[in-house]
Amino acid sequence: MDTAAVVGTGLIGTSIALALSARGVTTHLIDRDPDAVRLAAARGAGTPKPPPAPVDIAVIAVPPSHTARTLADHQKAGLARVYTDVASVKALPHAECLALGCDTTTLVGGHPLAGRERSGPLAARADLFQDHHWVLTPTPETGESALNRALELVSLCGAVPVLLEPPDHDRAVALVSHLPHLLASLAAARLRDGEEYAVRLAGRGMRDATRVAAGDAGLWADILAANAGALAPLLTELGADLTTAAHALSRLSAAPEPEATADALADLTALLHRGAEGRARIAPSYDGTGARPHSVLSVALSDRDRPLARLLADVDSAQLQLEGLDLTSTDTSRPASPATPADPPGSVRLKVAPDVARPLAEALRDRGWTVR
Amino acid sequence: MDTAAVVGTGLIGTSIALALSARGVTTHLIDRDPDAVRLAAARGAGTPKPPPAPVDIAVIAVPPSHTARTLADHQKAGLARVYTDVASVKALPHAECLALGCDTTTLVGGHPLAGRERSGPLAARADLFQDHHWVLTPTPETGESALNRALELVSLCGAVPVLLEPPDHDRAVALVSHLPHLLASLAAARLRDGEEYAVRLAGRGMRDATRVAAGDAGLWADILAANAGALAPLLTELGADLTTAAHALSRLSAAPEPEATADALADLTALLHRGAEGRARIAPSYDGTGARPHSVLSVALSDRDRPLARLLADVDSAQLQLEGLDLTSTDTSRPASPATPADPPGSVRLKVAPDVARPLAEALRDRGWTVR
Repeated sequence: MDTAAVVGTGLIGTSIALALSARGVTTHLIDRDPDAVRLAAARGAGTPKPPPAPVDIAVIAVPPSHTARTLADHQKAGLARVYTDVASVKALPHAECLALGCDTTTLVGGHPLAGRERSGPLAARADLFQDHHWVLTPTPETGESALNRALELVSLCGAVPVLLEPPDHDRAVALVSHLPHLLASLAAARLRDGEEYAVRLAGRGMRDATRVAAGDAGLWADILAANAGALAPLLTELGADLTTAAHALSRLSAAPEPEATADALADLTALLHRGAEGRARIAPSYDGTGARPHSVLSVALSDRDRPLARLLADVDSAQLQLEGLDLTSTDTSRPASPATPADPPGSVRLKVAPDVARPLAEALRDRGWTVR
Repeated sequence: MDTAAVVGTGLIGTSIALALSARGVTTHLIDRDPDAVRLAAARGAGTPKPPPAPVDIAVIAVPPSHTARTLADHQKAGLARVYTDVASVKALPHAECLALGCDTTTLVGGHPLAGRERSGPLAARADLFQDHHWVLTPTPETGESALNRALELVSLCGAVPVLLEPPDHDRAVALVSHLPHLLASLAAARLRDGEEYAVRLAGRGMRDATRVAAGDAGLWADILAANAGALAPLLTELGADLTTAAHALSRLSAAPEPEATADALADLTALLHRGAEGRARIAPSYDGTGARPHSVLSVALSDRDRPLARLLADVDSAQLQLEGLDLTSTDTSRPASPATPADPPGSVRLKVAPDVARPLAEALRDRGWTVR
């Protein structure tokens, strides 16, 4: 890839342009707002001059509702040999492209799953997509060279490509992006009329839960609207759960017979438990690579004075993170549990992240512990 | 404060005990689970031995539904001269204490607003409360010496005390903690049955929005139930907004006349806008000290080559964060906007956090810019 054009120099477009320019791609910046192009160019994202010949790839980085029209116009004008977009909804813009008579052989839908609450070219960063997922939605008509060009774009931005059908993409983002965004907004809206002393108590939980609600309301309404078909069934499901929760709480605040209270508490617990089960499916870390399994180290405690305190002090001094600890067989007066025949009596099992297991085992051996 | 007792050596109790022990307070650990006491003691949180005489303060750190009974039992046994608790709901436990005939003159309700998704003594940290809010809910019967002892506890833990009436506290945490917790659980519950490819796309937005849903379902059901009266009206309000959103989305996915679509889009935008307004009331940083105002620096651009690019490069090289930039009067060919008569023509206004204004101004002056 030698040349590219980015149409729409907002947060996403400028970040792509910064990444491409940093990799030596001559990148042409286009936006209907000349100030946005000027700022993006000033940040080193590329040139405001129009390309003298069709570029290798054009990235359409405008809101979903403008994506198809913008793409059709530039395709008609011959801006590029291959086109992709960054709209966070894929089925509707693709259908609109078909309706506008776009050439779909040179077209690959795309959606980089990265963003910030701040918008515009000033908030852009060349590493915005580093290690993030970037969905591409080729169709049967998409040419192989077009798909390969789009894959090269994803790679130059440091992202991880994921190929999906447009409707599958839309259902997925409804679940992991659009639904939580809407809920964050509804929770944050309650703060608008909250007492000052209440708002003052907002801590990390509230901040994190409502962080995305700070985003651009117009852009997000556009996104939710474009994905209405996939989002609506999730809202229906969630509304039913919300009704269950509200019903349980009203029974609890009315404080009737203990039996009804116990039922209401069981309903609430079941809802929260399902939430914990769902949450457990996503990774604890921010690297987007899936849930981490744990490793277990078995440490012999037997012949030391206050062994547990000394062991924990040694773990602390190694500055390594313990995820859990199983005391079942720590008591030398008790035999090892039959479920753990491999552990000698008087040992303790330390649960740690896999990358911690080896350094922790070494650190503990250095300090005189027997580790298996 | 020389002596303390912590009843309940879970995450919160053990963290308090670690903080007190680090400050030289002799801290006695009590829990119905001997393993929990053993682990807490092994981590250096205090002694498992019972106190030989009443301690200066006892901290009851058990779930809300057990708080009053535990407190009444220990008060009857004469464990301490002053009692506080850490239950995240205040009105109901206080009413239960009254019903159990507790001596309320030695009693100060408390709620440290800090926590982690992991529970138990292994997850405890001496600095868990550092710079966090810690609500105390003294009543008219509370003795002054009891309140001062509780304030000393908060101070020894490094937290910021906030005095509130119990019902005000409960309404506040319903808004900033219990409602977002419930919504996080409902959103996360949708993941339970999600397709693998969809769950795989969960990024930071989904992680942050559902982080608290990983918490202990039984404990949180207990908390929500104890605050049902304050939480229920918020759920009703939110349910109405959710219905509005669902209705707008179903109109949009049915795709009828453009006029109805425009109305639905306007409804969605209004909801999201109210969320952004509410979110703007809480601080962007994690320090819990309220929303930050911005400072504005005016920088003259006139007689330099490619001044905007050079200015942005100089801001970057100073490694200081720009929050925004106003280009209105950057173009020397245009007169300054009448709305900004103080800016000379050919200047640009940089919006920055207040603590950044002075170092950025100095850094830019060092690099030859005229900054006002």
